[in-house]
Amino acid sequence: MKICTDPSQMQSIALSLREQGKTIGFVPTMGFLHEGHASLIRIARSKCDFLIVSIFVNPLQFGENEDLDTYPTDHESDERLCTTEGVDLIFRPLSLYDTNHNTYVNVKQLTERLCGASRPTHFQGVCTVVARLFGLVQPNIAVFGEKDYQQLAVIRQFVRDLAMPIDIIGAPLIRDEDGVALSSRNQYLNPDQRIQAQTISQALFSVQAELKKTALDVHSIRQLVRQILDVDELDYLECIDPVLLVPVTNIDKPTRLLIAAWVGQTRLIDNILLEP
Amino acid sequence: MKICTDPSQMQSIALSLREQGKTIGFVPTMGFLHEGHASLIRIARSKCDFLIVSIFVNPLQFGENEDLDTYPTDHESDERLCTTEGVDLIFRPLSLYDTNHNTYVNVKQLTERLCGASRPTHFQGVCTVVARLFGLVQPNIAVFGEKDYQQLAVIRQFVRDLAMPIDIIGAPLIRDEDGVALSSRNQYLNPDQRIQAQTISQALFSVQAELKKTALDVHSIRQLVRQILDVDELDYLECIDPVLLVPVTNIDKPTRLLIAAWVGQTRLIDNILLEP
Repeated sequence: MKICTDPSQMQSIALSLREQGKTIGFVPTMGFLHEGHASLIRIARSKCDFLIVSIFVNPLQFGENEDLDTYPTDHESDERLCTTEGVDLIFRPLSLYDTNHNTYVNVKQLTERLCGASRPTHFQGVCTVVARLFGLVQPNIAVFGEKDYQQLAVIRQFVRDLAMPIDIIGAPLIRDEDGVALSSRNQYLNPDQRIQAQTISQALFSVQAELKKTALDVHSIRQLVRQILDVDELDYLECIDPVLLVPVTNIDKPTRLLIAAWVGQTRLIDNILLEP
Repeated sequence: MKICTDPSQMQSIALSLREQGKTIGFVPTMGFLHEGHASLIRIARSKCDFLIVSIFVNPLQFGENEDLDTYPTDHESDERLCTTEGVDLIFRPLSLYDTNHNTYVNVKQLTERLCGASRPTHFQGVCTVVARLFGLVQPNIAVFGEKDYQQLAVIRQFVRDLAMPIDIIGAPLIRDEDGVALSSRNQYLNPDQRIQAQTISQALFSVQAELKKTALDVHSIRQLVRQILDVDELDYLECIDPVLLVPVTNIDKPTRLLIAAWVGQTRLIDNILLEP
């Protein structure tokens, strides 16, 4: 497994692979890889000749008072995981942007609600870094987790709108044994907070189970979730159309239930598919 | 010469050419082609295997009260010119964007002055259409005229920032015999206005000539231009660094002199290189 830290070198390698007719698979990450990332990597591994994982904690997608400075890293563990999963190259740039970088990719509408409401520059940062990484890595396919459900929809939108010939693959959310959705940020949680975090997935599963028994509207879902949820602050709880991401009021077709909540200083997100 | 009107078909053709190892050259235009476009096409023709010219009057780059509805078209003449210049394919979509298009490419700073000051959404429209066209056409090289000097700089910036592996080539401005910079919008001018338009290039050439005789600062350049210029409204007259596009006060190194002015209802732009 190669490790490349230089953006221009990364692009040269990618262009040369493409010239040789190799297909490139890509999993962009911010490092501190866990089993959730491993699942994305396995999906990508099965669909390409050459598999690239990028590790870059992207300052553009963090707000002013967010956890950019404390975001966890563990290069050795990341390398072990990538080696085990058959990654061909880790792209881990020290700096990714030119000093006079001044271009931003903006998706309207989809980014204005849910996580975008409380993190107003977040998706601009995500789209910009992903667009630049796509330029450097030249992937045929790229895999993103459904854990960041809105992010996946936003990336699909800009890739389609900018006609990038890249197949965007969504991969299922992966949970720990206690139900908590895997996230690098889970490591911020102390044991008590971990128990609080469990109530998020418990609430989601309860709604899913209740829906098997009886019809539910959004109002009754909110009531049910609030009975179970033990977090410090609920950012949002939304039932949305899985593709358009617009709110629905009745669960009469497949719907995504999304939660974002604060446990201590940690913002957690989770989501589940509801089928009537 | 082929004519393709469907965006997905365009991309299939382009991807298939690239798979065959062909290099693609690209000249994006809004049609009503003139000798200025022909000069871009000739440059591109010499640098690629397969040459694509796009013709699309892009609504996104027009402001509310601009000339979108009256922008001239002449498909037959465009096709003749492209055939003569050895173009392989004209991409002339009826509609270019998906109905729920919601992605915009924004370049900061470079776009805030000069034409961006009076046309605040113009460059967002330009960058967005060019990025989408690049996705559909998959060019190795693309040629843009120095006539739209700021546009060329803005495109270079976003292509670099988004790491698109495309060689952006700037081509010299072409003038008519009377000195007027070639533009599809010149056809809006009546004979009297045409004489007014001539004073723009006359002013630029006078500055260039005067600079051969004596040192000039921006103040004296403004005075000289105003003596010659006979337009209805001057939008801007700026001496800028040719790369950074920031204003300079003394012409002690190569500098670009840019003018934008209204003659009747027609906005004209022109520019020239000043060398001390």
